[in-house]
Amino acid sequence: MNNYKLTISYDGTNFNGWQQQKNTENTIQEIVTDSIQKCIGEKVEVIASGRTDKGVHAYGQVVNFQCVKQLKIKMFLNEINEILPNAIVVRDMEQVPERFHARYNAKQKTYVYKIVNKKINNPFKRKYTLHVKENLNIELMKDAARSLMGTHDFAGFSSTKKSKKGTVKTISNIEIKEQYDELHIYFTGDGFLYNQVRIMVGTLLDIGTGKLKVNSVKDVLQNKDREQAGTTVPPHGLYLVSVEYDKESDEN
Amino acid sequence: MNNYKLTISYDGTNFNGWQQQKNTENTIQEIVTDSIQKCIGEKVEVIASGRTDKGVHAYGQVVNFQCVKQLKIKMFLNEINEILPNAIVVRDMEQVPERFHARYNAKQKTYVYKIVNKKINNPFKRKYTLHVKENLNIELMKDAARSLMGTHDFAGFSSTKKSKKGTVKTISNIEIKEQYDELHIYFTGDGFLYNQVRIMVGTLLDIGTGKLKVNSVKDVLQNKDREQAGTTVPPHGLYLVSVEYDKESDEN
Repeated sequence: MNNYKLTISYDGTNFNGWQQQKNTENTIQEIVTDSIQKCIGEKVEVIASGRTDKGVHAYGQVVNFQCVKQLKIKMFLNEINEILPNAIVVRDMEQVPERFHARYNAKQKTYVYKIVNKKINNPFKRKYTLHVKENLNIELMKDAARSLMGTHDFAGFSSTKKSKKGTVKTISNIEIKEQYDELHIYFTGDGFLYNQVRIMVGTLLDIGTGKLKVNSVKDVLQNKDREQAGTTVPPHGLYLVSVEYDKESDEN
Repeated sequence: MNNYKLTISYDGTNFNGWQQQKNTENTIQEIVTDSIQKCIGEKVEVIASGRTDKGVHAYGQVVNFQCVKQLKIKMFLNEINEILPNAIVVRDMEQVPERFHARYNAKQKTYVYKIVNKKINNPFKRKYTLHVKENLNIELMKDAARSLMGTHDFAGFSSTKKSKKGTVKTISNIEIKEQYDELHIYFTGDGFLYNQVRIMVGTLLDIGTGKLKVNSVKDVLQNKDREQAGTTVPPHGLYLVSVEYDKESDEN
């Protein structure tokens, strides 16, 4: 079987998240699968690096699918982007070894959460950033972010108590960048629990506005108490930026 | 009477243009007028620098309205932005002399048209820029833009044959800026005919792709023949950037 790896961008605003589910229409997985099938005339299973929730965006979601047909990359890219709705584009495509699996082989993921921090919002950014009116103490937020980095039990930063793969994860980097009137918070890690990024952002923002103290991050990590963490920020500021794989997994 | 000048930004995507009209709901003028009235408890007439068409955006539309009440600027700004839908914001407000009129006193307007020029579109920009796949010869477009500058009869670049104030206008500047993967074309002039900016952009793009020759701009200016100009590009790439007034008109 031929195996293809695609890098996909999507505006999540009007979709019901990535994952195809019973009784849920308009998922990105369903639309991408249908479009590939139309394009190549074979039934395929499209495997993503992971699901993104309803309303969450992606710059670089990675998926793979296997098919009998040998595809011409340039031609396929042109065709699939004609078929897909404008809110979804396949940015890149490459043929990978048959063993490559977009979910199992994912080593690191990077997310960014975008915030507009000024009194009056920018109407063109309202669907793509969170508007925060209050002044933010960025230095305190950076302090708190440093406590989140490393290997911890993040159970207190998740909406569900249990996770199949456990609640211990490693965050290798958090970067808070000020770009014009926007604040971008990048998270890179080996995996994230359900709503973890959105709760970490909510906690950092509550620290920035003074609602929570800097050391509340350490408290939540220790006590694993969701109640002590900040609010879950809405999905429309969140983007899956990129997924990293072991060199070996996608090279022959 | 007190007279207030507001600077307004709006995402035109979901509105029926600026101008309130019989049998047309959901115009920006109607929504702004209703919101001001709710805010101050008086009937007002909201006068804009000019109408923007359905789907056209604004960074800096300027309007004025008169009222009996003396308003507290900071408080009004907070209130009005709470009442307005998120797609419209009042960015700035100042009290101006009673004689100030946002339309009659407007001396210059600047528009920008935004284009994404690459093979594959960016899904986050699809509602706010025009996607052009073909390679563009920017130097030829700049050449052609120079011929549009100055005082000309722009009848050939308008969708309507007649204009109350005549079809001779002065374009003081056209600037073509390349910003990352976007192309921004700025037009500053003392007034623009119906669809003039969108037809000028369509003509420049047709010159950039080679569909039209550089000197077709001069031909259209001379022959006043709409048929020789390029296509009318869609409204979603167009923004009213700013409106300039004589110093005297808004100073006491």
